[in-house]
This record gives sequence, structure tokens and C-alpha cells, in this order.
Amino acid sequence: MAVLSKAPIHFGPFLVTSQVFYITPLSFALVNLKPILPGHVLVSPRRRVPRVSELTVDETADLFLTVRKVGRMIERVFGASSLNIAIQDGVDAGQSVAHVHTHIIPRRKADLDHKGGTDAIYGMLDGEEGDMSRIQRQLLKVADDETVSDKETKRRTDFPAVDNEARTPRSDEDMEREAQMLAKEMEQENDD
Amino acid sequence: MAVLSKAPIHFGPFLVTSQVFYITPLSFALVNLKPILPGHVLVSPRRRVPRVSELTVDETADLFLTVRKVGRMIERVFGASSLNIAIQDGVDAGQSVAHVHTHIIPRRKADLDHKGGTDAIYGMLDGEEGDMSRIQRQLLKVADDETVSDKETKRRTDFPAVDNEARTPRSDEDMEREAQMLAKEMEQENDD
Repeated sequence: MAVLSKAPIHFGPFLVTSQVFYITPLSFALVNLKPILPGHVLVSPRRRVPRVSELTVDETADLFLTVRKVGRMIERVFGASSLNIAIQDGVDAGQSVAHVHTHIIPRRKADLDHKGGTDAIYGMLDGEEGDMSRIQRQLLKVADDETVSDKETKRRTDFPAVDNEARTPRSDEDMEREAQMLAKEMEQENDD
Repeated sequence: MAVLSKAPIHFGPFLVTSQVFYITPLSFALVNLKPILPGHVLVSPRRRVPRVSELTVDETADLFLTVRKVGRMIERVFGASSLNIAIQDGVDAGQSVAHVHTHIIPRRKADLDHKGGTDAIYGMLDGEEGDMSRIQRQLLKVADDETVSDKETKRRTDFPAVDNEARTPRSDEDMEREAQMLAKEMEQENDD
């Protein structure tokens, strides 16, 4: 299977064509470089605007219908029972890429008990866990050579810790493979 | 000004008619008993369903168009620069009332630096801070007579602490006054 779109698709300044698994005329959905839980994906408007308030009526409706449809698929495919759906709408709400994006994160009972409880998910949206691309991560100057203890000290002041292994960036091949798998799964979803 | 609706409006099992400041044929918006920041409001579908996946196409589009419109108003009225928009879609994602509700929380630069940073907001969505009604809070058996140190010890294991004063439940009169003020402000917003 080839990529869904022949035209390049950008998320903010980042080329994400091979990460995209679903496209509508006004929205697209893509897999993450570093999902904070398996199945963590994003849904964005095709038009690059930073704020929800700047979306047109049609873009707003399409975005959320896409969220609903992608959410159903993600919950089914990842064997989840719930979803966190979140938009950091503006830089002062934690937005790191100036392009509207809705996080969809599949959840299961007690899946984050070892990390501080159900709502630990939100802290993980911060910083490198929520990153969308290797480039973005580099731009944000996340120091890979930071010692584990430095990282953990810093993290503990903000949020429950995230396992180091969970934060390993995936290869482009892994992301493309997942995007292709999810694209096939989307075909099973209807629009009702 | 009277309440917006003569018919009672329920959020989950809770009667919230006097807290409602905006109604469409398919959605409504209401103020919070204990906003986690000033201007923290909720937008729900009129029909009581627990999950986003159960919303119809029209309900889904209307819900998010209402979120966009209410968000614009809240950002303007509360002098904010960003918004957190979040749905805990299902109990395993932290949902406490089995009726779809979108949190809209106005944000300003560095408004939560003293509580652990921008994303501290999400932890506050948990438990009593996110409560919608006095009744709900009682049902959840939040112990008001817990000692402060017990509370803080418990809280610290989960999330950045929330100021005690910020968590004082508001009176019904306060909520109704705010709902009426926000209803007037909504009249200034358009649907484009």
C-alpha cells in the first residue's frame, strides 16, 4: 500500500505524509513518533491554523467527526475501553506545534496506576512524549545525553514519571507500518 | 433575566438548569461548581449519552461548534490567551459523570507555574476539582473533614497541589449570577 496522499502533508512545519492514516477533504489523522500510550494518534485540520477559533464551521464539524470516527477505530484496534481527547489550544495551554491538533489516546482500566493514576496521561502530553517528529524534538533541544537522574528529578517536579523505554522514538518504518495498518482498519468504520 | 430554559436541564443525573448559560437544539454549556481556573466551563450534548462514539453526526458537529463558540467567548471575557479543551471519554479516561462533557479552561501565560507548570491543569481535572454539583461531590464522598495534611499527602502522590481556597464550592447564587453574565456575553458571539 502506498501512502494515502500523493501531495505532501504537513503538520505545522513538519512533513508527515508517511505518518498519515486517514484523510478527509478538511482533516487528517496521523500516528505519533513517540506515542505516550500505544494508539496515541492526532487529528488535525488540513489547513494550518494554530487555534480552534480560526477554524471555519465546516472545518470544525469535520475535525470532530473525524475525531469521533478515528476514536472508534483506535478504541477497537487497541482493545481500549475509553479515550482521552484533548486539544492544547494555544501556546499558553501547552501547544507545541502551531497547528490545531486533537490528541486521541486509548485507555484501559488502571493502565496508568503504576505512573500515578488515570490522569497521569495529561502530564505526559507535555514535552517530548507528545512530540510529533524527530525534527521537532531536535528543535526543542531535548537533551538525550541528560542523565537519567537529572531527567527524573526534573520530571518528578512536574508529573508522574514516564518509563524511559516508552519514550524511545520510533523509526520512520515503524510509523509508516502502523499508519498503513490503521488506514486499513479505518475502512471498517462507517460515518453514521 | 430568567434562566435560559424553562424545561429542566440535566447533566448526568444532576439538575443544572440555573448553571446553564447557552443552549442550542443539541448542546448546552454550563458553569462549574468548583472551576479549576476562573472561566472553566463545560459543553455537553442535550441527549445524555456517556460516549462520544454514541453521538449522532449532527450532535457531534453541534457539540464542537458550540465548544468553538463558547471557547471564543470564554477567552475574551476572562482575558485569556489559550484554552485547554478536553473530554474524558469513558470511565477509564477519568470521566466522573456518564454524560459526554467537554471541559473548556481559559489559560494565560505562566498561570500555573506555581502549581507545577502549564500542564498541571490536567491533574486538576481529576476528582473534586472537576466536580459539577454539590450533590455529585457528596455522592463521591469527598470528605470535607479530612485533615489538610491528609489531603495534601494524597494529592501530592497524584498531581500538583491545588490551593485549598480555589476549591471552595460556590453558592448556587454565584453560579447563577455567572451563568447570566456569560449568557449575555454569548450574545456578542457570531456563528461564523
